[in-house]
Amino acid sequence: VSAPLRPAAVRTAGIVATGEELVRGTTVDTNSAWIARRLRAAGVPAVRFTVVGDGLEAIRDAVAASAREVDLVIVTGGLGPTPDDRTRDALAAAAGTPLEPDEEAARQLAEWFARMGRKPSESNARQALLPRGARPIRNARGSAPGIDLELGSARVIAVPGVPSEMRAMVDEFVVPLARGSGATALVQRWLQVAGLAESVLGERIGEWMRRLEPPLVSDTVSHGVITVCASDRDDAEGRRRLDECVARMRTALGEHVFSDRDETLAAHVVGALRSRGETVALAESCTGGMIAAALTDVPGSSEALVEAAVTYANAAKERTLDVPAALLQEHGAVSEPVARAMAEGIRRRAGATWGVATTGIAGPSGGSPEKPVGLVHLAVAGPGGTIHARRQYPGDRASVRLFAVTGALDLLRRQLV
Amino acid sequence: VSAPLRPAAVRTAGIVATGEELVRGTTVDTNSAWIARRLRAAGVPAVRFTVVGDGLEAIRDAVAASAREVDLVIVTGGLGPTPDDRTRDALAAAAGTPLEPDEEAARQLAEWFARMGRKPSESNARQALLPRGARPIRNARGSAPGIDLELGSARVIAVPGVPSEMRAMVDEFVVPLARGSGATALVQRWLQVAGLAESVLGERIGEWMRRLEPPLVSDTVSHGVITVCASDRDDAEGRRRLDECVARMRTALGEHVFSDRDETLAAHVVGALRSRGETVALAESCTGGMIAAALTDVPGSSEALVEAAVTYANAAKERTLDVPAALLQEHGAVSEPVARAMAEGIRRRAGATWGVATTGIAGPSGGSPEKPVGLVHLAVAGPGGTIHARRQYPGDRASVRLFAVTGALDLLRRQLV
Repeated sequence: VSAPLRPAAVRTAGIVATGEELVRGTTVDTNSAWIARRLRAAGVPAVRFTVVGDGLEAIRDAVAASAREVDLVIVTGGLGPTPDDRTRDALAAAAGTPLEPDEEAARQLAEWFARMGRKPSESNARQALLPRGARPIRNARGSAPGIDLELGSARVIAVPGVPSEMRAMVDEFVVPLARGSGATALVQRWLQVAGLAESVLGERIGEWMRRLEPPLVSDTVSHGVITVCASDRDDAEGRRRLDECVARMRTALGEHVFSDRDETLAAHVVGALRSRGETVALAESCTGGMIAAALTDVPGSSEALVEAAVTYANAAKERTLDVPAALLQEHGAVSEPVARAMAEGIRRRAGATWGVATTGIAGPSGGSPEKPVGLVHLAVAGPGGTIHARRQYPGDRASVRLFAVTGALDLLRRQLV
Repeated sequence: VSAPLRPAAVRTAGIVATGEELVRGTTVDTNSAWIARRLRAAGVPAVRFTVVGDGLEAIRDAVAASAREVDLVIVTGGLGPTPDDRTRDALAAAAGTPLEPDEEAARQLAEWFARMGRKPSESNARQALLPRGARPIRNARGSAPGIDLELGSARVIAVPGVPSEMRAMVDEFVVPLARGSGATALVQRWLQVAGLAESVLGERIGEWMRRLEPPLVSDTVSHGVITVCASDRDDAEGRRRLDECVARMRTALGEHVFSDRDETLAAHVVGALRSRGETVALAESCTGGMIAAALTDVPGSSEALVEAAVTYANAAKERTLDVPAALLQEHGAVSEPVARAMAEGIRRRAGATWGVATTGIAGPSGGSPEKPVGLVHLAVAGPGGTIHARRQYPGDRASVRLFAVTGALDLLRRQLV
């Protein structure tokens, strides 16, 4: 049994992401940004991310360099059972110690396979090897235990690259470590905005975003949703400043703010429906199931979403949504009358409070001068009648579809206030 | 006028991305992956990305470290006119030379503002300063000229962080530099695998994955799909070696390989259905529209997907899929008989060749000892009858749902061979 590691003051952090797919550019490293946000909220700023492939020397050198610079190094990836998973070897090389079987890691691994009802293969045994003196970190969501080790004056924590496993281990293990380190914790507040262009947002709250002193304000844009994040020191003075800043921004942004929590638009809609005791049903054409997928991503959504129909074919629009064939012939599937009929049809069919419909041209083909790629008709049918919106969205197929999801949910949530 | 820089052999590249929003995690660095893909296609692999804030020392040290390691360093960001744009100062510091006004840079800057019909502000004058000996790179889409300089044995190219400006300058200036450097372009091949644990894959093709000489093989895992990528030099010898490697791995992996192209499982299924002139309809419970969203993400999927029904509620399963109420009562919604009835019901309703159904417990709540979180029943109804699979997936709600999407599509694609 290895000795408990000494607690260290954690002032700054570095993040090392490993994986050939990352340096090849076929996968974008989103883990490091996520970890940096979590560490920052705990009062520990990340000063550097390093992305390397899966070569042992590359990982070793990146970890060693980061450990010389910062107090806490988070390493992601390379803990799997295959020969190109070399993070454990690289950490041992950086520490100048051998890899040894670890009893606790072996126990966690055996427990995982028992829970899954699977037999570990021979290669999984590698996952119970740790650099001498290191300790395993429990992974509740996958086979690979994490690694906790000291390297010079730095604490090095290695976690898997699979986002769900990484996130849980960072929240359960790394964030408490950072919080307990005496760093000044930060408090963060959010304003979630939909239906407003980023340039207009910049005009309305630019004075806050340009500040170089707390409260610091930044925004992130994602296909029609803008997340404004403000942070300040977690003390009386900081919270007072932050409250005032958020209140003023909220006034400036008006009805375009749909939430002041760290939640998605879909989660907000599910929460609003549940608190009103109302339900929704979906008729999706161009969004092809993405609105349903977004809503059902929210735990508890089964109380709010009765049914969704993905009706690409006109025959399905007639059969399942009772859209009259004549309407489809006269106006085409991508039209205001068809969007309205779809929303009303699914609402009737499902007996839901609200019916939401999308029909549009996501591309890359199918566009025409009158109905260009990016044109989307949205409709929401409810107790007071049916409303409609015509939108022209930018970008490729994926972009148009994502904008349409936001557009449809935004149209609905404005009815739920 | 500075002397022309000597041409250098470019074998490897490093990328340095700068910006406080990046290390804060509020913006994900997608520039580096894009540049890496472009350089790789030109035969120059990137071996490391470094992400730092906008501090002068941090940028200087990152560039200097990368220049010691590789032949070509691409730096993005920090070339704007504001005080927090410090890349030019950092490059001068790394080179140990002063910043000097550059005639050509000043000319390009004046030309840009004339073209835009705008007057440069005083702070824009900073953008015409270059480290002594460096040369400006023309920016056709923004005010900031790029910087081309030698640092030890490396060539350092700094471009703006604005993606549209960066991309144009990389394509116009950096890619020809990489191609003209005598680097050997690479050829890549893929094997897409589903239904196989990563550890078993490692046992079957581990000898290839451990190689340190071409062909180089690595894998990426994403919720049940493993993408194996092999690469070698794009010459007769390299292609011969790569062909042999891919053929042997294909034999070792057998029927678990669903494609030898750089495509998703959903794209493969759409392609297979279209080439057979067949169609599919979906009945999704726990996946909540995600299979439909994955299929409709593929252009041309409207020919293959007739209809999808997201039926969370039992009432919807009865109404839309004709699942007998007695079956739901006797076995529960998450059961083999209900999965089979859902697949058969949607197939009949839509008149499709195939009906695919999912029903499971995605969590976080709803589990029981007999039906734990992660349990998913999959069914595929087709011309020859209905098949079923019971799966226990790991991870949180998002993970279980993603695994179930892969499981359902994998079950279907094995019927399409």
